[in-house]
Amino acid sequence: MAGNARIDGTRLWDSLMAMAEIGATPKGGVRRITLTDLDRQGRDRFRGWCEAAGLSISIDTMGNMFARREGRDPAAPPVMMGSHLDSQPSGGKYDGALGVLAGLEVMRTLNDIGHVTERPLVLVNWTDEEGTRFGHSLMGSGVWAGVYPEADAGRWTDVEGTSVQTALAAIGYGGPQKAEPFPADAYFELHIEQGPILERENKAIGVVTGAQAQVWYDAVIEGRDSHAGTTPPSLRRDALVGAARIIERVHAMMQARGEDGRGTVGFLEVVPNSRNVVPGLVRFSVEFRHPDDAELDRLDHEFEPAAFEIARSLGLKLQLDRLFKFKAQPFDPACVGLVEAAAQRLGLSWRRIVSGAGHDAVYVARRVPTAMIFTPCRDGLSHNEEEHIEPDQAAAGGQVLFEAVLARADRKA
Amino acid sequence: MAGNARIDGTRLWDSLMAMAEIGATPKGGVRRITLTDLDRQGRDRFRGWCEAAGLSISIDTMGNMFARREGRDPAAPPVMMGSHLDSQPSGGKYDGALGVLAGLEVMRTLNDIGHVTERPLVLVNWTDEEGTRFGHSLMGSGVWAGVYPEADAGRWTDVEGTSVQTALAAIGYGGPQKAEPFPADAYFELHIEQGPILERENKAIGVVTGAQAQVWYDAVIEGRDSHAGTTPPSLRRDALVGAARIIERVHAMMQARGEDGRGTVGFLEVVPNSRNVVPGLVRFSVEFRHPDDAELDRLDHEFEPAAFEIARSLGLKLQLDRLFKFKAQPFDPACVGLVEAAAQRLGLSWRRIVSGAGHDAVYVARRVPTAMIFTPCRDGLSHNEEEHIEPDQAAAGGQVLFEAVLARADRKA
Repeated sequence: MAGNARIDGTRLWDSLMAMAEIGATPKGGVRRITLTDLDRQGRDRFRGWCEAAGLSISIDTMGNMFARREGRDPAAPPVMMGSHLDSQPSGGKYDGALGVLAGLEVMRTLNDIGHVTERPLVLVNWTDEEGTRFGHSLMGSGVWAGVYPEADAGRWTDVEGTSVQTALAAIGYGGPQKAEPFPADAYFELHIEQGPILERENKAIGVVTGAQAQVWYDAVIEGRDSHAGTTPPSLRRDALVGAARIIERVHAMMQARGEDGRGTVGFLEVVPNSRNVVPGLVRFSVEFRHPDDAELDRLDHEFEPAAFEIARSLGLKLQLDRLFKFKAQPFDPACVGLVEAAAQRLGLSWRRIVSGAGHDAVYVARRVPTAMIFTPCRDGLSHNEEEHIEPDQAAAGGQVLFEAVLARADRKA
Repeated sequence: MAGNARIDGTRLWDSLMAMAEIGATPKGGVRRITLTDLDRQGRDRFRGWCEAAGLSISIDTMGNMFARREGRDPAAPPVMMGSHLDSQPSGGKYDGALGVLAGLEVMRTLNDIGHVTERPLVLVNWTDEEGTRFGHSLMGSGVWAGVYPEADAGRWTDVEGTSVQTALAAIGYGGPQKAEPFPADAYFELHIEQGPILERENKAIGVVTGAQAQVWYDAVIEGRDSHAGTTPPSLRRDALVGAARIIERVHAMMQARGEDGRGTVGFLEVVPNSRNVVPGLVRFSVEFRHPDDAELDRLDHEFEPAAFEIARSLGLKLQLDRLFKFKAQPFDPACVGLVEAAAQRLGLSWRRIVSGAGHDAVYVARRVPTAMIFTPCRDGLSHNEEEHIEPDQAAAGGQVLFEAVLARADRKA
């Protein structure tokens, strides 16, 4: 019975470790930035494993890689799974790679037990999930799902002026297949939580019900630099005092929403940044997230006038650019139900959870019934070379993925 | 009568412009960082002018340059004047250079009228007033006055590991004379105000009565970086929120002192500084200044526990290093009186003022009766390529310097 098969946790772990060799950093992390030669090496290794597993590879014009295992009904919409192999500049071994390599492990396990699913299976490595090089996260899945026009994305450039198209061609991963949605039955993505909730509650599995709504801003607040020793209080226009008050406001607005609120200033830069000069200009980022669209709207509508009032009261000029605003993305209840049923049947501890981070699944969900599986990571740490998970945590996530995918791929139409 | 002589404002201005050619920046400022080859070029030009004016040059082991004009009584303690020729990385044409070149103009004017003062005159170019390269401002005057031990200062290094000693030797300005105080009758320093007070009150001359007390800190506040999307409020340890509250507190403490208070966070750096990461660490500077020692003590004593309480309340770790604490430095009443009398006699508008910035005069004042003369600068702007003064403002300051120096150098013992 395929339903009782067990994935090979050791083989999954070995694949994770082998992938982590490519771009390994001295501190135990990974630097495998999208569409670099290291990314090419990772893709080549993944492609070799897929071919050895008898999967047929196709690549689309955004470099998204699709590895297909045929079903009994080749015309049926496939069940998809996957994630991404690119990393943050100082990233960990598991962010992205776990979902791709657990998908590979699902394929290998089905080979081992000689089971052919009713529907085809397609394992995806999405291009440039991290967004660290070309400035747009979830690029490959975003173009695929129609969020970004492909013509735009191809022209995005990195800091050195290299375009996405040029970078794809340089590593030989610009494929012929158009980057667009095809009919698919479902999409499942396994990912580390990148947060502390599962670990804190000692849960093996997060049954992800959807992703938070988000709004991101870029802010520039401007006063006037002047000598810190000679400029009296009444003549100061200190941009950093303005930024500090906005940071405090963002924090207070988050706290007013209880544990579901998220409000963060993560990036901040002071000009001229000299200890005896009153700061004349500060650039910073602001973001809010919330599982509920209406609450995010309230955050958005409350923030802008509050920030402008802070600037005005200090004689500062504020420029606020809303980079984007996403609605919350609920996942497909049937797919979520399969993940939950698998965790339950396997006797794993689990809880429902809302994804705080963005994932390829969030864009794919606009086109295909989707669910995600989270597994814990140590101290909730991610986007960090010290990101860490245990082999049995990876195996538990991989087993839930296997069962959810199989349930969907073999279900009666 | 020497007392009725007028300095040559055009010659002074031409010298300022000629000096500003060395290290000129495209935006009209100056980048002439201490002990670089540009500093050497500036020193060489100054030396050439001094020699052409018949002054004898001596150089001490810290590179301080002394240009002497003999008096009728060569054994009498000299009257000193001067400032510095080094600049900020993006500095202006007048900060420092005005005091040195106005001193040169005093010498040239005395030559023109053929007047020999009773006491010798010594014009000084102090090494590294700005402190931007080796991390200690007022270095040359500080060593001379015994504030910094010379053995320590010689070993201070820049970011590339070059020591002060090595840099002095490289530009050929490590002299044989020991850097230590010699008996001197007085020291006068002309400087732009670097603040907006004189301009705002439409005064030509600031009669500087002393310098503010100051305390400077380096702060590091540490929480934990974590994913901005996944970390709930209760689990955040956001170092930037802590820094923001301390910035607000510094501002409030300044404002509570009225127009005499100064409190500034001018430098701040966020780690990892990524828009979707809750900041784990922030480094920043804090400084307070006040004309009154007792009030500065109160600021110092109030700040430390307040900052630690802010950190504690947010679960953050704060490290606070007091870099230095200076007492207020009153200038010599007799010297201050000569400056005031000169401004008055010349019919210039003037006011008494406390220096907000540090100046070589503040250290020299520990050893020699000292006063300073301020002239306005446009919008109070300094440490900025747009620093600007008018020729007649420079000439007025130079004339007051001339008269004060002459009154002291020729006074009966």
